[in-house]
Amino acid sequence: MKHQYTVTVIGLGLIGGSMAVDLRRRGFASRVMGVEADPVNAAAARQIGLVDQVIPYDKCLDDSDVVILAVPVGEAVRMLPELLDRIGKCGKGEGPEEYCRNGYGKTIIDVCSTKSALVKAAEGHPMRGRYVSTHPMAGTEYSGPWAAMSGMFDGKACVICDSGESDRDALETVEKLYDVLNMRTIRMEAANHDMHAAYVSHISHVTSFALALTVLKQERSDRHIFDLASGGFSSTVRLAKSNADMWVPILSQNRNNILDVIDTYMDEMKAFRDAIAAGDEAGIRELIGEANRIRRIIK
Amino acid sequence: MKHQYTVTVIGLGLIGGSMAVDLRRRGFASRVMGVEADPVNAAAARQIGLVDQVIPYDKCLDDSDVVILAVPVGEAVRMLPELLDRIGKCGKGEGPEEYCRNGYGKTIIDVCSTKSALVKAAEGHPMRGRYVSTHPMAGTEYSGPWAAMSGMFDGKACVICDSGESDRDALETVEKLYDVLNMRTIRMEAANHDMHAAYVSHISHVTSFALALTVLKQERSDRHIFDLASGGFSSTVRLAKSNADMWVPILSQNRNNILDVIDTYMDEMKAFRDAIAAGDEAGIRELIGEANRIRRIIK
Repeated sequence: MKHQYTVTVIGLGLIGGSMAVDLRRRGFASRVMGVEADPVNAAAARQIGLVDQVIPYDKCLDDSDVVILAVPVGEAVRMLPELLDRIGKCGKGEGPEEYCRNGYGKTIIDVCSTKSALVKAAEGHPMRGRYVSTHPMAGTEYSGPWAAMSGMFDGKACVICDSGESDRDALETVEKLYDVLNMRTIRMEAANHDMHAAYVSHISHVTSFALALTVLKQERSDRHIFDLASGGFSSTVRLAKSNADMWVPILSQNRNNILDVIDTYMDEMKAFRDAIAAGDEAGIRELIGEANRIRRIIK
Repeated sequence: MKHQYTVTVIGLGLIGGSMAVDLRRRGFASRVMGVEADPVNAAAARQIGLVDQVIPYDKCLDDSDVVILAVPVGEAVRMLPELLDRIGKCGKGEGPEEYCRNGYGKTIIDVCSTKSALVKAAEGHPMRGRYVSTHPMAGTEYSGPWAAMSGMFDGKACVICDSGESDRDALETVEKLYDVLNMRTIRMEAANHDMHAAYVSHISHVTSFALALTVLKQERSDRHIFDLASGGFSSTVRLAKSNADMWVPILSQNRNNILDVIDTYMDEMKAFRDAIAAGDEAGIRELIGEANRIRRIIK
């Protein structure tokens, strides 16, 4: 295994930018390059110092050992097969066949919040082994290179999906990468991951968006309602600041799981509504008591 | 106006305990006494040092200038007329009539999250002027004397309801009290407060309870789901730890407002569900874009 790697991050937003910073600062990367389609974000990322150099997308594999796809999942699904194709060609006739077969040891990872569509996009590709499907479960409700920060992944979980499809050395590189970011890795099938993510991440975003819409609608007729917004409201609604470019494809790609969770959630809301409407204090108490079991899980 | 007051706090939980600590520490109170029905909480409050002395409920007016009702709203509605009755009697035949009429200058405040039922409970009482209806909008999802903390109210808003019904000197005492707690006060009618509170506080609790129930239901069939719970989920669900003793009466008393908000909220959830089910990415994007307007309001 190499001691240091050259890394290219495609997409210099919150996740990509935060990885870039710590991978270089902590010595995993000797050099970090960035690919960023938005010229303002690209200039900012360079100015802030997230990357050593911004390079064009079609150069992203030339000098990189590791390419990190940190773009919204819709774009990642489109890019992944292209990158695998290019890895497949990059060694043609220029080295021993075995070395060539593993794309000169290059590793491609993605960091998206849904995994099934990506794994499917790479399925059966001759270079499939060079791809490792990962989901570092960390972030904030902010986006863009200015939201990136050191330490964001420390102590959090990272899911690695369908690891049996990846080459052993690629997996080792990725394990090392997440170890440097202080993440504990969990292996899981992509389909299983997407169901879990719907429960512990995606639904929270939908409920926050709906809460924001509810209160904003009221605010139109009452400009002073937010004078009263307290800490509880802010924490419950904060995910509603999340970026549409990231969340539209997630909600769209993980549709079936999310619809299942929304339906269960609407049933629970209805149970509350019914108990409140009926003045059934014992019923409300039972629902709250049951919900309080979350105490033993969430610190 | 007095320089220092003797204060009795009825209910030594999160709110009452936190008020007790700062009112004494910051010099508003020369002495703080507590009334607490639960013997464990009473012993803890004394041990932690929240109050100088724990006294029985029926002594709460004897040596106090200010009595703070910090019990769940159902109990407060029951206690308030009793306390006003007792104030009315406490001066009988023992001083000039005027002094007696204002209950020896004693002030009773409550700090509950719904106000209409309390204001109604005091309506027309000969001692109504000694009562000031307040809602300091601060707190955490924890409860009990061990959750109390200094500084909890700093910089937050406190609503004072139907202030025209309170005696001028009682209001001045209460303004001074909240000034010491570093709160900005807002005056509002009780009915208006309850509608606002439903939007910016009560609904957040219901959505958090429902989210906890949804995820806990899934957890039964999958013990590992919470390995993946990230910061976003924790913040959205944290209010689901809130105490039933406090929240059952709030949801019950503010029923009509809360049902209105739940209905609007369910409509918004359904709009999301429909857009996701239809694969309508433009529709999802529009909903998220609209929800993002919360950014300019919540820091």
